[in-house]
Amino acid sequence: MRLELPANTERFGANTFHHIQKVFEMDGGYEMDAEFSSPFHIIQQISREQIYHIERDMAIVIPVKNERLRLLEGVLSGIPHDCLPIIVSNSQREPVDRYRMEQAMVDTFCRYAKKRYVIAHQRSPELAKVFRDGNYPHLLDENGLVHNGKAEGMLAGITLAHLSGKKYVGFIDSDNYFPGAVFEYARLFSAGLSQSRSPYSMVRIQWQSKPKIVDSELYFAKFGRVSRITNHYLNSLLSHYTGFETELLRTGNAGEHALSMALALRLDYSAGFSIETYHFVSLLEKFGGVIPSPFPEVMKSGTDIYQMESRNPHLHDADKGNDHIKEMIEYSLGVMFHSPLCPENVKKEILQELRAGKIIGKNADPVLPRRYPALVNLDFKTAARTTDWQRHGNFIPA
Amino acid sequence: MRLELPANTERFGANTFHHIQKVFEMDGGYEMDAEFSSPFHIIQQISREQIYHIERDMAIVIPVKNERLRLLEGVLSGIPHDCLPIIVSNSQREPVDRYRMEQAMVDTFCRYAKKRYVIAHQRSPELAKVFRDGNYPHLLDENGLVHNGKAEGMLAGITLAHLSGKKYVGFIDSDNYFPGAVFEYARLFSAGLSQSRSPYSMVRIQWQSKPKIVDSELYFAKFGRVSRITNHYLNSLLSHYTGFETELLRTGNAGEHALSMALALRLDYSAGFSIETYHFVSLLEKFGGVIPSPFPEVMKSGTDIYQMESRNPHLHDADKGNDHIKEMIEYSLGVMFHSPLCPENVKKEILQELRAGKIIGKNADPVLPRRYPALVNLDFKTAARTTDWQRHGNFIPA
Repeated sequence: MRLELPANTERFGANTFHHIQKVFEMDGGYEMDAEFSSPFHIIQQISREQIYHIERDMAIVIPVKNERLRLLEGVLSGIPHDCLPIIVSNSQREPVDRYRMEQAMVDTFCRYAKKRYVIAHQRSPELAKVFRDGNYPHLLDENGLVHNGKAEGMLAGITLAHLSGKKYVGFIDSDNYFPGAVFEYARLFSAGLSQSRSPYSMVRIQWQSKPKIVDSELYFAKFGRVSRITNHYLNSLLSHYTGFETELLRTGNAGEHALSMALALRLDYSAGFSIETYHFVSLLEKFGGVIPSPFPEVMKSGTDIYQMESRNPHLHDADKGNDHIKEMIEYSLGVMFHSPLCPENVKKEILQELRAGKIIGKNADPVLPRRYPALVNLDFKTAARTTDWQRHGNFIPA
Repeated sequence: MRLELPANTERFGANTFHHIQKVFEMDGGYEMDAEFSSPFHIIQQISREQIYHIERDMAIVIPVKNERLRLLEGVLSGIPHDCLPIIVSNSQREPVDRYRMEQAMVDTFCRYAKKRYVIAHQRSPELAKVFRDGNYPHLLDENGLVHNGKAEGMLAGITLAHLSGKKYVGFIDSDNYFPGAVFEYARLFSAGLSQSRSPYSMVRIQWQSKPKIVDSELYFAKFGRVSRITNHYLNSLLSHYTGFETELLRTGNAGEHALSMALALRLDYSAGFSIETYHFVSLLEKFGGVIPSPFPEVMKSGTDIYQMESRNPHLHDADKGNDHIKEMIEYSLGVMFHSPLCPENVKKEILQELRAGKIIGKNADPVLPRRYPALVNLDFKTAARTTDWQRHGNFIPA
């Protein structure tokens, strides 16, 4: 890959938030051009070796829920071979067992491609046992199974990635129509993470555009309504502390993102549509220096949060209605509103936004989504031993 | 890349037409898996080295005509670094000089990416001089300039690729919305060509699907009307000679294709929308063994024609009306109809098809598009010397 260096950054405590980076070439060439190692060069060439060093240690979690199988197959074909796909499915089991169909398709595909993979059903007792035995009951519901929800599937994915010995974990949606876009996301994860000298790093993708059908024509919208609002308030929050207005944060709802495992295990998570926005809130709370950090090692090394603009538009299957958009806005702003870091003036603006948009009632506060403490609290050793998870039918050995 | 071996083939004289090949992984992994070199394996892994050996010798010709600049920039970002993009533009020069804008954008992009490129205007006197000095007047019109038309731009592209010392030449349209799809096409060109042991090889891409907007929803059509008809008659033509009905030919109108230069210089070409279909006709005529071949060296080595199904759908800008589709059908069937190889029964069916579809009049025959003799007739040495083309402003040195 050839991409620009991040032109500027915002710092908040131990966090470094990097400006959006532009991609020039999806493939940067076989040979390394020595000129790019010059300290005066603003473009960088990420070598195939650098990418491989990340990919062989990276799991790509693909949350699935009743998606079309042909789309999931396309997504698999776009994931670089050296990454381990981890499919966490919450698809229906009856009357038609869609999960069984997914298993069959993934297994056939991976036999042909000779690709290792992990697949698990989110509501299987075997997956629940990992969290029970690891003494992390937070993710389990009253039936002792992993909670429903995409965020919860993502947490299960991080857990399976760590159990598989992976050092990086990325997330890609299963309903993407363009394997070439999936491929670019995965490569951007590796390129982005390879830039960091800290063990605590994250890459978040801003899509080039998101095509919509308007009057029987494709319109390539740049920012969705949810992103526009989320990013505005995230930047307000940041600006309040730095004293300088900024619009650097552009990826408050980035579903396509990847983290180093060391960071993934130390963040708190939030349920529902707020999980991506809450990454930022958790970074500011835990490593911002305002609230004492439970992880002095992170305070020392610092975090690197990269934002990268994909060259590919994002064309996916799900068609989200207006109610869904309202819910996303409420959840995204809710996690900021309820943060102890949120200053009064930003709280007031958030309430105004949500009330004026009739997203919450006149006197109501936004919801406080369920939170999950850092996964570092899970006893992975015990869980790995007692659940013997890699031998089990639901978890095909990676 | 990981892709299946072509499961079966049709042979016609010295031509080998390979069955559509399926792609499993856009990236096949950093390390080579020895198992794939087993003679009993039906999947192959194309190494990064094999791809590089083709890419460094491959030019990608991008015909442009008043396309949106942001789409062209996206296409450039998807072309692997080691390929040489050759932009042949027939964009307007007044009242707004769109070609100047293209030059400026391409130059800026390639400076950042440090990518070599060639750009030329189809109607420039400098480009015409190559064909005049090379004693290949066929491509020039009454004004002494290269004929208008996409096919003619493609021929100019092959010529510039050969002058640039390239051994392979591929074609990618400039109005593709997904750089990731462009990337896959280019990689399929290399993967496909790397399979051949003959110096005379070609790769043709069948798109996974071509999304259309139907009732405000995307519909992923598999075959366009033109392709369906063209492929049907190409297969009839082939079947007539082999005596076995076949539907192996699936890429009769494949705009995305690549050829070894040795083959590109020895085919005849046809103007207008028939250029891709005429590839097959020219292969059958020149190397089919029915008509004596002007190139005994090709008869000896044979040709390898690969067809590969991309994983990416093809989403592009141009929206073609019904008249355009009728014209494409007439041209595609016209080149078959007028071939000395076309048997009477196929001719009759073609006439029926065109007349019943009201594409041609009741007693009319399809057009015979203008033809261009093989470019091997062009005196490249003289042209390269007298036109000093690489120094000229319109041809930025590669």
